[in-house]
Amino acid sequence: MEQIMKEIKQVIASCDQLIQDEKFNELVEYYTEDAVLVVKPGIEARGKAEIKTAFAKIAQYFDNSIKPVEGEMKMIIAGDTVLVLAQTFIEASEKAVKQSDFSMERRATYIFKQVDHNWLCAIDNSYGTSLLD
Amino acid sequence: MEQIMKEIKQVIASCDQLIQDEKFNELVEYYTEDAVLVVKPGIEARGKAEIKTAFAKIAQYFDNSIKPVEGEMKMIIAGDTVLVLAQTFIEASEKAVKQSDFSMERRATYIFKQVDHNWLCAIDNSYGTSLLD
Repeated sequence: MEQIMKEIKQVIASCDQLIQDEKFNELVEYYTEDAVLVVKPGIEARGKAEIKTAFAKIAQYFDNSIKPVEGEMKMIIAGDTVLVLAQTFIEASEKAVKQSDFSMERRATYIFKQVDHNWLCAIDNSYGTSLLD
Repeated sequence: MEQIMKEIKQVIASCDQLIQDEKFNELVEYYTEDAVLVVKPGIEARGKAEIKTAFAKIAQYFDNSIKPVEGEMKMIIAGDTVLVLAQTFIEASEKAVKQSDFSMERRATYIFKQVDHNWLCAIDNSYGTSLLD
């Protein structure tokens, strides 16, 4: 369990760095083939190509200054499937934050799956249960 | 997508009825072999046997009067893996509700997986992101 948590934390840290560096080709390698990213409530990107495009748009929306930072994190591990609950802070330039319609502090729900010994993100929902609002 | 949502909604409705009827042998057939139930924050039941025992204790805790009711529900579907976000109301006798340390209204996160054409629950976390509190 400890080892799995450590591996997934490393994947999330790598992804956060790749988002900040806008290296989206490398980023989507951490997603499953049929992964879903909740871009904003009601809007989903599905599969690596759509997710890559969505991240590029999100970066632009945040004035190319986005920096995701994870806070408190909990994991529930069921074999090859893991639910990650994470406090996520989206840091960005003052200008971008002022213009944003979206909360910069979120409680995210990520689902990771083990595929060929690698932990990949299958569902990336930074909005967590707030989608029920 | 519509069909998958319909099937999973039916599974959840069946499970809620089986919990109310305390038919735990039938209930655990809707869980994967390595499923995890978050019994309460920090306490997990893992696998069908532990989950069955946990549900029996939960029923007793709630004075054998438990009735789960789902409200608003959202699903994010990534191939054979689905994240369900659900408003869940735990109804129970007045006496049981008064004695309970736990919220009777929750925002749950369930993960379902398709196994041999059936949708089974892999992670049952009725506490949702409130585990981060």
